[in-house]
Amino acid sequence: MLPILPHARTAMTDTLRDLARQLDRFAQERDWQQFHSPKNLASALVVEAGELLEHFQWLTEEQSRALEPERRDAVGAEIADVLLYLIQLSTALGIDPVEAARAKLSLNASRYPVERARGSSRKHDEL
Amino acid sequence: MLPILPHARTAMTDTLRDLARQLDRFAQERDWQQFHSPKNLASALVVEAGELLEHFQWLTEEQSRALEPERRDAVGAEIADVLLYLIQLSTALGIDPVEAARAKLSLNASRYPVERARGSSRKHDEL
Amino acid sequence: MLPILPHARTAMTDTLRDLARQLDRFAQERDWQQFHSPKNLASALVVEAGELLEHFQWLTEEQSRALEPERRDAVGAEIADVLLYLIQLSTALGIDPVEAARAKLSLNASRYPVERARGSSRKHDEL
Amino acid sequence: MLPILPHARTAMTDTLRDLARQLDRFAQERDWQQFHSPKNLASALVVEAGELLEHFQWLTEEQSRALEPERRDAVGAEIADVLLYLIQLSTALGIDPVEAARAKLSLNASRYPVERARGSSRKHDEL
Repeated sequence: MLPILPHARTAMTDTLRDLARQLDRFAQERDWQQFHSPKNLASALVVEAGELLEHFQWLTEEQSRALEPERRDAVGAEIADVLLYLIQLSTALGIDPVEAARAKLSLNASRYPVERARGSSRKHDEL
Repeated sequence: MLPILPHARTAMTDTLRDLARQLDRFAQERDWQQFHSPKNLASALVVEAGELLEHFQWLTEEQSRALEPERRDAVGAEIADVLLYLIQLSTALGIDPVEAARAKLSLNASRYPVERARGSSRKHDEL
Repeated sequence: MLPILPHARTAMTDTLRDLARQLDRFAQERDWQQFHSPKNLASALVVEAGELLEHFQWLTEEQSRALEPERRDAVGAEIADVLLYLIQLSTALGIDPVEAARAKLSLNASRYPVERARGSSRKHDEL
Repeated sequence: MLPILPHARTAMTDTLRDLARQLDRFAQERDWQQFHSPKNLASALVVEAGELLEHFQWLTEEQSRALEPERRDAVGAEIADVLLYLIQLSTALGIDPVEAARAKLSLNASRYPVERARGSSRKHDEL
């Protein structure tokens, strides 16, 4: 089971916690908590992830590695939206996203041993 | 225009930078950089966001506010996946996600003035 | 405004209407209508669209044009899931998806005149 | 394995085939086939599915069952976009979406027996 806050707080960085607090205040001032159920926040997150992908949908991979400055800024704004909803969802559920990311990275290291995973894009259960 | 690294690095927290470095090494050891174009990372991100939403799709908002521990852990693992791809995409584009999030939060504060936005779920251009 | 059923029914093909009826019965027999609000069906649809994209996320465009038979079948199953939710959502809202698609195609023809749109992947408002 | 066209054509309805042909001509006239790899079409589909979900993200399930006419029309336009990309993707892969949907519906009938699935939103492997 994931660590429950505030233990998790030791892992979540000060900066993310600052953002979490600002987002909390932002929503409270606007009486938006009524809309911010985890279900709705997860929906909003995938919507923003779609807007992020939209910038890349007709680009070649090569082109996506060399975005024009204007496009890169627009992508940055979508990355921001995804992160902001990710923080809000994490806060709503009492999950520390950084701690969860570390745990997942450890799991991936055991799921994808270097020798077997090298140069392959297969999923761990197909390796 | 968004700040270019390494200036941006002053904003991205040490913890996220640690994760970014670990992910970079992880991909390099497995010769996965060939797959990790921004286009592909953005696709992977939305796929994970979909898996995150899957946990909530048949729940009521009420139920989503009170997840069982097992479900909550599974959601945490999906949050982790989204964050890990978000970090990798940001690194690939030289974007600081925390700096971008702060900039977006400022923009949102001006787009959604408290008086007009209170209790409304309308978009800024429909307020 | 979109035509309201049953006028729309003249456009929706017999085959899709058959599927719509089967899906309706399927849900009714299992007492699943309680879960099938348009909001939830739209979530389920994007979840399935994500599973569809997952098959392509690490492939090159070239590889995606020449899927192995097994992969192609798996993609077909995801296409099916997307279509089934699209039909259920349309039914729930009284929208004829074929009629809507025709209307959109007409709109696109005016938004993307051949001369200006040729060889360009820009959106209509950036052409 | 899924039936290969033209056998599948007997299942795909005339109306969908008409749309497929129109879309084909539309893309050809604009020299857009270069952008329309299955990978890109699958991305475009999930982007549109996200735009569809955006209309519902802050609504209650109740509200989503009673859309205002203007909203309902906008949703219809997004349903259209999803269907149009679904058809193009299917055509590009030689998959008959209606045939695939029928096959999936049969599979679901065996995966979700009425007695066990009644009133439950669990996945088949958790029933």
